[in-house]
Amino acid sequence: MSTPGDVTAIDVPSRAPARIDTPAPGDPRLGRLSLNQKTVDGWSLREAVDGCVRHGVPAIGVWREPLAEAGLDKGIRWIQEAGLRVSSLCRGGFFTVADAGERRRRHDDNLRALDEAAALGTECLVLVPGGLPPGDRDLRGARARAADAIEQLVPHALAVGVRLAIEPMHPIFAADRGVVSTLAQALDIAAPLPIEAVGVVVDTFHVWWEPGVEEQIARAGSRVASYQVCDWITPLPPDALLSRGMMGDGHIDFALLSRCVAAAGYRGDVEVEIFNADVWAADGDVVLDTLARRYVELVEPQL
Amino acid sequence: MSTPGDVTAIDVPSRAPARIDTPAPGDPRLGRLSLNQKTVDGWSLREAVDGCVRHGVPAIGVWREPLAEAGLDKGIRWIQEAGLRVSSLCRGGFFTVADAGERRRRHDDNLRALDEAAALGTECLVLVPGGLPPGDRDLRGARARAADAIEQLVPHALAVGVRLAIEPMHPIFAADRGVVSTLAQALDIAAPLPIEAVGVVVDTFHVWWEPGVEEQIARAGSRVASYQVCDWITPLPPDALLSRGMMGDGHIDFALLSRCVAAAGYRGDVEVEIFNADVWAADGDVVLDTLARRYVELVEPQL
Repeated sequence: MSTPGDVTAIDVPSRAPARIDTPAPGDPRLGRLSLNQKTVDGWSLREAVDGCVRHGVPAIGVWREPLAEAGLDKGIRWIQEAGLRVSSLCRGGFFTVADAGERRRRHDDNLRALDEAAALGTECLVLVPGGLPPGDRDLRGARARAADAIEQLVPHALAVGVRLAIEPMHPIFAADRGVVSTLAQALDIAAPLPIEAVGVVVDTFHVWWEPGVEEQIARAGSRVASYQVCDWITPLPPDALLSRGMMGDGHIDFALLSRCVAAAGYRGDVEVEIFNADVWAADGDVVLDTLARRYVELVEPQL
Repeated sequence: MSTPGDVTAIDVPSRAPARIDTPAPGDPRLGRLSLNQKTVDGWSLREAVDGCVRHGVPAIGVWREPLAEAGLDKGIRWIQEAGLRVSSLCRGGFFTVADAGERRRRHDDNLRALDEAAALGTECLVLVPGGLPPGDRDLRGARARAADAIEQLVPHALAVGVRLAIEPMHPIFAADRGVVSTLAQALDIAAPLPIEAVGVVVDTFHVWWEPGVEEQIARAGSRVASYQVCDWITPLPPDALLSRGMMGDGHIDFALLSRCVAAAGYRGDVEVEIFNADVWAADGDVVLDTLARRYVELVEPQL
């Protein structure tokens, strides 16, 4: 838009011509960009690390499953040798199970996730709260269990120096994935807990619609532990889990939310996290080119 | 569940055996049940009126398009001759257009909708706020336009004795259908306006996930102008517009929300409004039998 377009480049998945030139590796505008590895779901951790290096993306958001597949030590070595920061580990949480034994197992697994985050050198473990247990319609109860479980993780988070980042999730997921539905609610849960142990994720997809989201981001201040970006697109793709869009393809005002996050004092990495079948079907390198362009066009100027 | 099941009856669209006997026409438990005609989308207004009579449903929620198809006078006559109440007219609204001429046309159409509601003898015109105009990402601006447009309708609402019922819509629709996303927000818009002219719709599908919804329903008090019920089901059907479920097939606690609505002082009809391809594909009479059973099992005891 502001610079002459590179007519040879095509954005994915929109297939629209690129609106700006692709920033080259080393471009200072890429300094805070992070690739959440779910955005290139077809790539292994090794491939995602190499992709970041190839495209000059200095940070990566790591998922536990592909990390386990690679082997923790090996994965850490790859990331360190590539010189990447780890912006977050995804994900702990799933706190809402009702059975006491299962709750204990979830707690223990979250302790392990904190250890893994510490080993990776990231300050942020993203927490997906979990949905309603099968047949359970007590949303208030599930929310209370999530708050309790987070509190129980605080001592270990402090011990290993990793922050628990509560991810409020779009209400489309309230039943089956995340009972914490607004940034306001996440901040209410975090409020009584130490700020160095508990923060929140601001994910544009999840919170863009929230009435008063600007004020809530300001209220969050240094509780903002992670800033994740992707768009809300319509018509909504048929699989709700894969309904996220490339920044600029949908309805979200990234300038507004990015300004709010910057004004709140956030100076960390900005993760692009897109779950979308069309993005996943595209060539990973073309996805990285597109997201780098959209990031420097729509997000980075406001940071 | 509480009474011996009628083994010959099958619920739709679940195909589960009925858990209770079907309430017969005249059963006092049906006294406040209303059929929103979108629940039997395959039926004309005439067929929906006849279906209500056949099943002992004493009220109907009418949509403007099928009413126009029947002809206003004829439709009103059918409804009056059948002895049905009209629990609401759906729908006015779509306030968020940015173009001034189009806004004027929308205002005039909403005046006509108020007149139609008055002619039908219903006290309630349901308002769907509308989404973001194409290419417009200013959600706050769209919300402000909706609030302004509602205020401009107040004099005519008072003149014809029909209440404007703001429908907060699930955030899944914030981009393309309804920018008013929470009951709290709808009540904030209504607060400065006369209570006899402006109320809110409590639709379980739209508000069940809202943190503090119980307190917001209590806050609403006599602002509750309509209570609509259907369920949130998972996995979410592929078309977001048709993602509503039969009460009891999903995750919503109808006992809780119905108790809250009753405690707020609501004494009006309870509309069953289900947009769902499987419900629409089922035989209308079987749909009415199922919804009557689910209503007397899950909703009516709390009213």
